[in-house]
Amino acid sequence: MIALDRLSVVRIADDVQSGRRSAVAVIEEVLERLARYDAVQDAVWISRFDAQALRAAAAAVDERVAQGEVLPLAGVPFAVKDNIDVLDLDTTAACPAFAYAPDRSATVIERLVAAGAVPVGKTNLDQFATGINGTRSPYGVPRNAYNRAWISGGSSSGSAVAVAAGLVAFALGTDTAGSGRIPAAFNHLIGFKPSRGRWSSRGLVPACRTLDCITVFTGTAEEAGLVDAVVAGFDPQDAFSRALPDVPRATRRIGIPRADQRPWFGDIESGFLYDTALATLDVELVEIDMAPLAEAARLLYDGPWVAERTAAVRDLLRDDPDAIHPVVREIVEQGLSYGAVEAFEGQYRLAELARAAEAMWREVDLLAFPTAPTCYRVAEMLVAPIALNANLGAYTNFVNLLDMAAIALPAGRYGSGVGFGITLIGPAGTDRALVDAADALFPAPASPPPLDLEGRMETVKLAVVGAHLKDMPLHWQLTSRDARFLGEAKTAPTYRLYAMADSAPPKPALVHSENGGAIALELYELDLAAFGSFVAEVPPPLAIGTVTLEDGSFVKGFVAEPRALTNAEDVTALGGWRAYVARGAD
Amino acid sequence: MIALDRLSVVRIADDVQSGRRSAVAVIEEVLERLARYDAVQDAVWISRFDAQALRAAAAAVDERVAQGEVLPLAGVPFAVKDNIDVLDLDTTAACPAFAYAPDRSATVIERLVAAGAVPVGKTNLDQFATGINGTRSPYGVPRNAYNRAWISGGSSSGSAVAVAAGLVAFALGTDTAGSGRIPAAFNHLIGFKPSRGRWSSRGLVPACRTLDCITVFTGTAEEAGLVDAVVAGFDPQDAFSRALPDVPRATRRIGIPRADQRPWFGDIESGFLYDTALATLDVELVEIDMAPLAEAARLLYDGPWVAERTAAVRDLLRDDPDAIHPVVREIVEQGLSYGAVEAFEGQYRLAELARAAEAMWREVDLLAFPTAPTCYRVAEMLVAPIALNANLGAYTNFVNLLDMAAIALPAGRYGSGVGFGITLIGPAGTDRALVDAADALFPAPASPPPLDLEGRMETVKLAVVGAHLKDMPLHWQLTSRDARFLGEAKTAPTYRLYAMADSAPPKPALVHSENGGAIALELYELDLAAFGSFVAEVPPPLAIGTVTLEDGSFVKGFVAEPRALTNAEDVTALGGWRAYVARGAD
Repeated sequence: MIALDRLSVVRIADDVQSGRRSAVAVIEEVLERLARYDAVQDAVWISRFDAQALRAAAAAVDERVAQGEVLPLAGVPFAVKDNIDVLDLDTTAACPAFAYAPDRSATVIERLVAAGAVPVGKTNLDQFATGINGTRSPYGVPRNAYNRAWISGGSSSGSAVAVAAGLVAFALGTDTAGSGRIPAAFNHLIGFKPSRGRWSSRGLVPACRTLDCITVFTGTAEEAGLVDAVVAGFDPQDAFSRALPDVPRATRRIGIPRADQRPWFGDIESGFLYDTALATLDVELVEIDMAPLAEAARLLYDGPWVAERTAAVRDLLRDDPDAIHPVVREIVEQGLSYGAVEAFEGQYRLAELARAAEAMWREVDLLAFPTAPTCYRVAEMLVAPIALNANLGAYTNFVNLLDMAAIALPAGRYGSGVGFGITLIGPAGTDRALVDAADALFPAPASPPPLDLEGRMETVKLAVVGAHLKDMPLHWQLTSRDARFLGEAKTAPTYRLYAMADSAPPKPALVHSENGGAIALELYELDLAAFGSFVAEVPPPLAIGTVTLEDGSFVKGFVAEPRALTNAEDVTALGGWRAYVARGAD
Repeated sequence: MIALDRLSVVRIADDVQSGRRSAVAVIEEVLERLARYDAVQDAVWISRFDAQALRAAAAAVDERVAQGEVLPLAGVPFAVKDNIDVLDLDTTAACPAFAYAPDRSATVIERLVAAGAVPVGKTNLDQFATGINGTRSPYGVPRNAYNRAWISGGSSSGSAVAVAAGLVAFALGTDTAGSGRIPAAFNHLIGFKPSRGRWSSRGLVPACRTLDCITVFTGTAEEAGLVDAVVAGFDPQDAFSRALPDVPRATRRIGIPRADQRPWFGDIESGFLYDTALATLDVELVEIDMAPLAEAARLLYDGPWVAERTAAVRDLLRDDPDAIHPVVREIVEQGLSYGAVEAFEGQYRLAELARAAEAMWREVDLLAFPTAPTCYRVAEMLVAPIALNANLGAYTNFVNLLDMAAIALPAGRYGSGVGFGITLIGPAGTDRALVDAADALFPAPASPPPLDLEGRMETVKLAVVGAHLKDMPLHWQLTSRDARFLGEAKTAPTYRLYAMADSAPPKPALVHSENGGAIALELYELDLAAFGSFVAEVPPPLAIGTVTLEDGSFVKGFVAEPRALTNAEDVTALGGWRAYVARGAD
């Protein structure tokens, strides 16, 4: 079976240009990959060119190379989010009733094809690019490439998964609130969001037309730069196109959110991953006041800008509202309730907030923010689609409103396999500087974990410190649940261990204390259902809570109610329960 | 009695800085001028500093000069439109219920005072700067300085009249739709409207906050440049301030409206004055398609931007609507009917129109447009306040929406004495280039006519060609009406003169014809009522219409119905009725 390793833009272009390999051969391999991954999840795509058309397009590239043309993206297969026009494929914006056959490709597509790239098909998205989670489409839910229980992020869901799964070498997304960055984070990708107007929007179905940017997902920052070099440039046919000069940028002073202003929505693993990634940076970290950025962000979904989304689907909303995804419809209908007065007042407020943001650029060269504060399971997302979606945008929503450029990059992984990302952000025009900074600041991102091709079971990591340790009386409760032993570890040095009185079999209580020590533990991994049944068996005064490990990360683990300490013996000094058992009870 | 000649910024500053004259002496003269013109029309002002305060302010300037300070505007008295904050004077925006005592002067005022200028008082305006005609204020109507039957133009009505009447050396206005340019034209002044954001708007009562510009009225372009040098510059406290680099600009190719797209609203005198002014230019005149400019202009009053005006007075409109001038209220209430969707759609359309305008700058260096298409009498304005106001903005409304800078300059006079203006327009950043171009293209503007200090009677010019000529049988109809003889002249060479059959006393018929000659005539001037009674007496088949003179200008004059030609004798070859009478009837 063909491997679904990532495809390299650079290698394919080099091979095809140099004649080492034909574009047709590349496309044949892509066809095999597509067939394999279709069996995993075909909700990635809304439409594709058929094999014959793809071979013809590839052959045309080979012919151009044979004629002596130098093509920077020779034979490179790419995917296109289905709100961007590609000639000969319908544009749906994930709404069948909205679909139309464009009479011309978008400017960015024309430039990519001129550079030798081969469009493979149109990818799924949150309908009308309204959403940043990836579950809002009648064409199904493209799930996270690394754990299909989890969301891919959106709205450019299909494009991100297509690159992560090795189906194409790069893919175009779009980004208004974070749609080109959040799916990059969750799928261990680069997501490059240019400055507004740097890439032409002609041929793009608008979401918020004053803010929309076309973006690209790639495996490396270098590849994003390569695509940018082909696509960027003023387009007189796009009223929002801008001729922005490139602004150089140092990377000495990096802005991060003030420590008390980092929303994680209860996901302490994100905080740990963020701190871990920052710790690799050899720069001056400067804490930034998030208040003006957060206020700008709220204008996008909780303010008059939602009327731009309404404007984009106005006819459909009036003539055939049932054709719109119910969650999307609920959002775009809100736009009708805002007056022009509020729209202008929003712009006044935004101008003031932009001043505050500008002041920030005197303090820092770039921002290095978390890309997303947390990730959610698909099942969670479907239950609270608007509230959880809003949470996801906490670090991305303000960027387009405040006229900034951004590049999201892989910066760790959650226990689930889902990616954690950091986004570098600079003022408009710093696009090239951001691409360079991504490589300079994060030179060696970890390889992504294996793809989830079989429907990975979701698992939980559990720390045990007492009677569940190997060879201890309750260890069978783990083995009977197929728990996998991950290794031995220690808590952070902020715990005390007590031997509880009157506990049979003898069991310890682990209690957090600033004045504590590091306690030995064992780590296990259990499937969700097994973990659930395990927790169900835990007797009081014990409980399953969250335990900090010596590296600062968090796992589920045994904690204790206060009453556990009644007449208990503090055995912290022994360093762990095994030593206590070896010593024997006093 | 003190003369009300214009005050020169340059001379006063030179005199005070060099010690030839004290700032106190200048202010004493200003106080005399104010007293004299108050008796003519005191609706120019809403509030003024008292004599003691003005003397103290002037003395402070003298003291600074004595201490060795170099002050570019030493002792120069200026007026401030009363929607700009000046410490120690209320800001009313011409609405008593809105008035407040500012706790600080606007940034522009602070910069002017730092440069040695002396603020005299606050001038009247169309309430909330809503209007470009000057009649919409509860503080009275500042009338045109050169003919008080006519409007001064607005909204910066009082500021323009204050400079024209020699009360101050310059005055600040503001400009959203043309408020800093139209009153300049009507009062024979320079009206400089900088690029949006070049002059700080902190301390300005907003009209349309995304568009508002503070402006200046001066006697010469050089003086406007002097004020600009003091006032321009980024202000971090103004969210709409911009640091715009100066853009140089050639003056070779000058754009004018396409000949078939020049709205004059029936005022052929304007067309004549415009052509006459253009004829003095030694440049390439390039005809411009007005359609995109006109469409942008309509967005301002007939589109969602009116909601910005609503936003500016939202609280007052809700709590005390009767406190708002009825015409202004009718306009600002319209803003409530626009939705945020329409506001954003207007922005999309504007962005497209801006593209069309940008293309224009590849064809021409600058525009030289009429400042206003016509002028109206105060009495006319009050009868149709909204429709006629809209007419006035035909050549100004689009400028701020399309991010352009402009300088209005005197370029002729109507028969009434009211000024006709031309405005040079360039893209944002061409401010200095426009000031230079004003002097280069129009190096010798005619002196303004005498001020109207006694309540000039309104008059009409009448051309007579037959029985009303001096010593002819009906001449008494002129003398009995106190008609003033202005001189002899000829028609353009596009008339035929016929001796009508059966007319007693013998009378000619003047008929327009491409294949004609120049006919001798006499020009008279009559007061309006006398003219009206004269017209009432004209028997058929004659009528009073419009006659083109040999210099291309237009006057009222005798014309004839077609039936006048029945059995008439063509006497064109004689060159006039006097020759026909001398020859004797055939």
